[in-house]
Amino acid sequence: MHLTTLTDYALRLLMHVAQHPDRLCTIAEVAQRYDISQAHLMKVTHRLALCGWIETVRGKGGGMRLARPAADIRLGAVVRDMESDFALVECFGPGKACALDGQCRLAGVLDAALHEFLRHLDGYTLQDILPRGRPRAPGRSALVMLRP
Amino acid sequence: MHLTTLTDYALRLLMHVAQHPDRLCTIAEVAQRYDISQAHLMKVTHRLALCGWIETVRGKGGGMRLARPAADIRLGAVVRDMESDFALVECFGPGKACALDGQCRLAGVLDAALHEFLRHLDGYTLQDILPRGRPRAPGRSALVMLRP
Repeated sequence: MHLTTLTDYALRLLMHVAQHPDRLCTIAEVAQRYDISQAHLMKVTHRLALCGWIETVRGKGGGMRLARPAADIRLGAVVRDMESDFALVECFGPGKACALDGQCRLAGVLDAALHEFLRHLDGYTLQDILPRGRPRAPGRSALVMLRP
Repeated sequence: MHLTTLTDYALRLLMHVAQHPDRLCTIAEVAQRYDISQAHLMKVTHRLALCGWIETVRGKGGGMRLARPAADIRLGAVVRDMESDFALVECFGPGKACALDGQCRLAGVLDAALHEFLRHLDGYTLQDILPRGRPRAPGRSALVMLRP
């Protein structure tokens, strides 16, 4: 069982940005910190901005910041926004005709289980999952140069 | 968010077998009913038998049946047995070094949410999700010939 890469990266990106409330963060530094793809992060950033979780500033010296305090960003809401497909099993997907002819009760049970999953995440905010200490400094990193 | 194909097929296979308690079921008929791969179903059957959910009978006229009553097969237990990987996000996976250096609290929150998901499924048995009516007869199907 997995969340999509988009959701995974969104949560990590938000955690990074939340740890630097005093400045704009760049996609490049997030990609470097977690060793993940910049191309994927661009898609993530676009979706997070569309959903109102981050604000982006274009141009030289631009970057992103949280659009609201980390304590106001509920994890369940972010996961709902990022996961485009909650079809837990194939037969729920679009265009799939179920051989059980609409009488199968698996869908309802899995949907309710998913609801419990998201309800639990709604009990936590981005602030709740931030590391308590200072973030670890990367080795060879543009991030190092950006720091005072 | 998805369950693996293995889990998806396992649940559907169990539902089919549970609807035919009076005879052995074959992989071929399950594959035909749901229009899914026999090769995948062989893997599913092997795992379900190893975990004690079904019994298989080899040879001509062989097949599979539930190893215990459908009312004793908890969905949460089946999903736990079939999902080999509950690493909800990539950074929890084997061999992944987390850049947040062990201080990230996302893992704990997601694990607890997953626990809620499975706990909900534990509240239901295979019997609970069976269609209430008779299974739909497939059109051109070996299954038809097997029926009395």
